[in-house]
Amino acid sequence: MARIAVLAGDGIGPEVVAQARKVLDAVLPDVQATEYDLGAARWHRTGEVLPDSVLAELAGHDAILLGAVGDPTVPPGVLERGLLLKLRFAFDQYVNLRPSRLWPGVVGPLGNVKPGEVDLVVVREGTEGLYAGAGGSLHRDTPAEVATEESLNTRHGVERVIRDAFARADRRERRKVTLVHKTNVLTHAGSLWARTFDAVAAEHPDIATEYQHVDAAAMFLVTQPQRYDVVVTDNLFGDILTDIAAAVTGGIGLAASGCINPEGAYPSMFEPVHGSAPDIAGQGIADPVAAVLSAALLLEQLGHPEAAARVNAAVAAELASRVPGVTLRTEEVGDRLAAHAVA
Amino acid sequence: MARIAVLAGDGIGPEVVAQARKVLDAVLPDVQATEYDLGAARWHRTGEVLPDSVLAELAGHDAILLGAVGDPTVPPGVLERGLLLKLRFAFDQYVNLRPSRLWPGVVGPLGNVKPGEVDLVVVREGTEGLYAGAGGSLHRDTPAEVATEESLNTRHGVERVIRDAFARADRRERRKVTLVHKTNVLTHAGSLWARTFDAVAAEHPDIATEYQHVDAAAMFLVTQPQRYDVVVTDNLFGDILTDIAAAVTGGIGLAASGCINPEGAYPSMFEPVHGSAPDIAGQGIADPVAAVLSAALLLEQLGHPEAAARVNAAVAAELASRVPGVTLRTEEVGDRLAAHAVA
Ligand SMILES: CC(C)[C@H](C(=O)O)[C@@H](O)C(=O)O
Ligand SMILES: CC(C)[C@H](C(=O)O)[C@@H](O)C(=O)O
Repeated sequence: MARIAVLAGDGIGPEVVAQARKVLDAVLPDVQATEYDLGAARWHRTGEVLPDSVLAELAGHDAILLGAVGDPTVPPGVLERGLLLKLRFAFDQYVNLRPSRLWPGVVGPLGNVKPGEVDLVVVREGTEGLYAGAGGSLHRDTPAEVATEESLNTRHGVERVIRDAFARADRRERRKVTLVHKTNVLTHAGSLWARTFDAVAAEHPDIATEYQHVDAAAMFLVTQPQRYDVVVTDNLFGDILTDIAAAVTGGIGLAASGCINPEGAYPSMFEPVHGSAPDIAGQGIADPVAAVLSAALLLEQLGHPEAAARVNAAVAAELASRVPGVTLRTEEVGDRLAAHAVA
Repeated sequence: MARIAVLAGDGIGPEVVAQARKVLDAVLPDVQATEYDLGAARWHRTGEVLPDSVLAELAGHDAILLGAVGDPTVPPGVLERGLLLKLRFAFDQYVNLRPSRLWPGVVGPLGNVKPGEVDLVVVREGTEGLYAGAGGSLHRDTPAEVATEESLNTRHGVERVIRDAFARADRRERRKVTLVHKTNVLTHAGSLWARTFDAVAAEHPDIATEYQHVDAAAMFLVTQPQRYDVVVTDNLFGDILTDIAAAVTGGIGLAASGCINPEGAYPSMFEPVHGSAPDIAGQGIADPVAAVLSAALLLEQLGHPEAAARVNAAVAAELASRVPGVTLRTEEVGDRLAAHAVA
């Protein structure tokens, strides 16, 4: 039995998560899902973001399925820091896994890239860097104001995520890991990342490696996304690069992610990369594919690779059959995906 | 008379700078250029990167024209921190100006974007943020190693670059400024940027404004680059976003930049965005357009807008006449551009 905590969240979150649950139920018997009401609505109603008691309950689950949190009516940072990042850090989800594939049938923005040619995965560090929340300000609202943000990086944190990236490359066909950082400017953190990368690479002589500065990688993701297999990078660089990777493979409507604690000491969390999209919420037109692909990552993490493969196959069929310009209905897509995944 | 310090630098730097000088000489009588030997070669020969005496001499010029510095044989950071960033900081070049235009004749990577549709300029902060060099490490080369990088942001630094962005938008047709940051995670620096942006925006009720998180902006630069006019952002975000903007408008072979001290208290510096490209150096095949467009920015900054316009027109004619697949010769392109610019 898989005990899944469902955090549907705000905006289109509940709409897309409902489809992901449909698909999960279709491929996995005995999913026990518990819904948690967290996000903008709860904050407005109660002032609470993530009570400790809820955090403790979530810890008792095998995995978390998250829709989207965020709303323009909530000040920036409240839900991001208080809920999303809080969970990533509290549950030590140090592997923020973001695969990008240009699926057959999907028309990406790049004229010279054909479906099937792009199949990369970004292993984004999830518990360190500029996301540590180490910063402050002085003399706020005066001409003398100064504000800082500190990137914290440890050998422990950097090494474990690099090891994960090599382990993933080891299971893939092209067997290549690209380290992305900015060693020429961020010399201290960059040096730690580069030295650790080289040390881990030395244990994997059969895996190809390369290094790129983040600005160059951002460019190559647009001009030659085909060149990447596994990309390992820092938390903030990963945030930016994965949105570019999503853009060149058809948009964040298709981009899945997993915030993973590989050891399973804590639950991992699976969420579409897209946000709550308040502009289209409630209309039943959000694309549930990203949420469904995130559910496939969940299945893999919980040790159900065949079920995951069936979900991926359903998505492939769905995307291949799409007619450009035809508005999709969230529910219908979910129904089709669930039906295909069991067939 | 314009006194220009020429730092041709490494790799293709000297090749492209020679063309930029040709063009400058063609449109501006009385350019007095002084060459400085700085970069990888000097470092290898003497161990020096930028002696104080040279820095003092450079300060006496009206502008600096830089080719490219960097070489794989030099450890990361040595030339970047010791030369390029040293100059940007020492000469208080707080406006790092990076225009991106999809020129007619240029085939960009985006299938649905037509030449003429993209015309944006990124005003990247140049003297603060993570480029301040505030970081360190402890327990290096042990399992306990920790490395930090600190982003330093001041109201002074943020306000002046935002003011510059609004002033530029005021001189442009579309009159729109987009602030890019990551206010939902970098809450301290993000709040400083956002509050300062709002305050300056309030003085310009006739200029449209929007805010985007850096990950969203990276995505929109790929999916809808047409939407941007002036983008103002932090030093590191600007580094990444301008490479994306360059990629979608035909590559860094065409991307110009100016590191500007708007008050003219110190010389401004103009450089192609591309690097030293050691792989093609010495072959005479580097595209000098980025260097020549940087020279046009130099002309504008020194108060010669008509000369700048003539250089831009020459570039437009050159790009419109290019035949895809035909290898260009650096010298010939330079000759054509110079001839066209005087005609
Ligand atoms: C919402 C935000 C805090 C988050 C991040 O920056 O990690 C998002 O952009 C993402 O990529 O999951
Ligand atoms: C070479 C490097 C220090 C530099 C930067 O990061 O600013 C470069 O990438 C640029 O954009 O000019």
